[in-house]
Amino acid sequence: MLQKFQGVKRSTLNAINISPLQTGGKLTPEAREALLQWGDGYSVCDFCLGVLDEIKTPPIYDFVHEALPKFLGIEHVRITNGAREGMFAVMHALAQGGGCAVFDENAHYSSFIAAERAGLDARTVPNSGHPDYGINPDDYAKAFEEVKKETGKSPLLALLTYPDGNYGNIVDAKRVSKICQEYDVPLLLNGAYAVGRMPVNAKDMGADFIVGSGHKSMASSGPIGVLGVRDGYEDIVFRKSEHFKKKEVEMLGCTARGTAIMTLMASFHSVVERVKRWDEEVRKAQWFSAQLEDLGLRQLGDKPHQHDLLFFEAQNLYEISQKAKDGRYFLYNELKARKIHGIKPGLTKHFKLSTFGLPKKDLQYVVDAFDYIIKKYA
Amino acid sequence: MLQKFQGVKRSTLNAINISPLQTGGKLTPEAREALLQWGDGYSVCDFCLGVLDEIKTPPIYDFVHEALPKFLGIEHVRITNGAREGMFAVMHALAQGGGCAVFDENAHYSSFIAAERAGLDARTVPNSGHPDYGINPDDYAKAFEEVKKETGKSPLLALLTYPDGNYGNIVDAKRVSKICQEYDVPLLLNGAYAVGRMPVNAKDMGADFIVGSGHKSMASSGPIGVLGVRDGYEDIVFRKSEHFKKKEVEMLGCTARGTAIMTLMASFHSVVERVKRWDEEVRKAQWFSAQLEDLGLRQLGDKPHQHDLLFFEAQNLYEISQKAKDGRYFLYNELKARKIHGIKPGLTKHFKLSTFGLPKKDLQYVVDAFDYIIKKYA
Repeated sequence: MLQKFQGVKRSTLNAINISPLQTGGKLTPEAREALLQWGDGYSVCDFCLGVLDEIKTPPIYDFVHEALPKFLGIEHVRITNGAREGMFAVMHALAQGGGCAVFDENAHYSSFIAAERAGLDARTVPNSGHPDYGINPDDYAKAFEEVKKETGKSPLLALLTYPDGNYGNIVDAKRVSKICQEYDVPLLLNGAYAVGRMPVNAKDMGADFIVGSGHKSMASSGPIGVLGVRDGYEDIVFRKSEHFKKKEVEMLGCTARGTAIMTLMASFHSVVERVKRWDEEVRKAQWFSAQLEDLGLRQLGDKPHQHDLLFFEAQNLYEISQKAKDGRYFLYNELKARKIHGIKPGLTKHFKLSTFGLPKKDLQYVVDAFDYIIKKYA
Repeated sequence: MLQKFQGVKRSTLNAINISPLQTGGKLTPEAREALLQWGDGYSVCDFCLGVLDEIKTPPIYDFVHEALPKFLGIEHVRITNGAREGMFAVMHALAQGGGCAVFDENAHYSSFIAAERAGLDARTVPNSGHPDYGINPDDYAKAFEEVKKETGKSPLLALLTYPDGNYGNIVDAKRVSKICQEYDVPLLLNGAYAVGRMPVNAKDMGADFIVGSGHKSMASSGPIGVLGVRDGYEDIVFRKSEHFKKKEVEMLGCTARGTAIMTLMASFHSVVERVKRWDEEVRKAQWFSAQLEDLGLRQLGDKPHQHDLLFFEAQNLYEISQKAKDGRYFLYNELKARKIHGIKPGLTKHFKLSTFGLPKKDLQYVVDAFDYIIKKYA
């Protein structure tokens, strides 16, 4: 009975995986090697003297205190168990049990849950609705004013999702940060779909905090994330315990040890290199979007699109699903038969996907599959 | 420059590792296989419909909702990012920003940090000091009375570390839980060094909450833990978000995905089996302790010892260190030369180690090494 938990194969391992959750987290060969060296539970703690990011063997200290701050454009970095845990650490440290925050309406659900857990009241800057779902940076000022009018105080935090996980929209973060500075509201950038895929520099964008996701976008095993904090906030977010002088309270003393940190490190060189090729990724995404639009689908969100995460509205596929034998599962099953994975079972009218890191020939294969499926049911 | 983060070898991989952090987290062959299948970032989310523990492929649902509750003897289980994150979830849910808790003085530092983060004032039940460092269950009643006298209320939570991570002492948990029931104080058992090593049943022991550590004691890649909650507390600790009906606030919506959960599952059958052989482990630990005592070291904590985690006081090694060429590093270097790892560099007078899972011949080799080293410097 318990043997069923052993030897479980990943049926999608050799599929073309276009799930937005999967394209940026695929391990590099270097990370696969690291798995075998560092797979055991607490492996990286062999030479730990009490603080994860101060471990010299393996070279975690250099990674966290030199390489990552440079990569993210921010002074202080820590490893977290994921982007959401990083957001929660910031919110919990700032809120201390109350207050308001302002998020973009496109924010990931975990931002709202982190706020809920931290006791922060999260207000939203609305998006423009169908078909663009755009966020107007100037609306942050409006939202700040409303909070001030209602509570007498500025919000404790602003959050911008860069890009958001539904439409892959890129908001002008510099304009948002200028407004934040005018109102003296610190800005947290959720870069779960940016850090490790595209160039992001917290300083250039004026962000006070930035989070990234190792398993989503930095070619690492999960769960792991990075949290960057600007000079001046490190004593708040990374405050030390009153009783254990080296341990940081919001990190609960220590975070992602083992395979997670070792795969993050092992993939880092490749990740830094791939970020330099971001233009190619954007061109590929735009080309793919145009191909699917030629087949009668409609891409929502920013146009021309600036990210690999694409959201489609497919009236034609929806209509097919109304008559197809498999009903709304027809698309999933047809793609599965062609070893294409990543669009959720049952979705036809609205779905998202990602083109990140996939070779053009694989994307052409996906386009051809859609073409064939649409014609088959015509 | 960034290439130094690639291809990092674990120099201790083939050593005899007696670090208490490492002996219970060593992967099983099944878990090593799982690493290769499920190494990619968010691999387990291929077939996720929004909740980690409801994933049917791979069989996470059965694991979390059937196998683990049975194993832990408790109704509701969730996967966390580690034992400390489980403790924090319980404390944060119960405290809601204030109140008192009572911990055993031997509690792991992360228990106190979790309390600090949750805004809980943690009082302690003192240990008996040198040489036993024992916790008297009846002292929980005293501590509860003191809290009541001072604050007018019972504490919100009691915590017992079972066993503690320094001395490996096993406290009579049933007696503690009886006292907790009399005072109507819920009891959290920190089983980071128990769950996956020795038989533990939350119900039998009267615990309301239990945490275990995958990377410390369940042969899994880190970071991962398990959190068990008794009927009646699940709506508090696993309360759902107001805005996202399926997402649990204290879990931030989702926790350990990827290799961590897959290695935990893959090793589970072996872990269940090894727990049945706990008697052998205790006998081995007692034998090892007696051998080192014959060499002039003194084992502190419970005697006869009931756990593989052993703490030694070594006046003889300390005296050698006062004269040895390598000073206080002599012991570390001598053991290293013999491919024995796990006693921290610089320690001679007091150190801990673990005999868990090591074959008798390896332990004999360690004993012989101590014998040789002591004679060499005599």
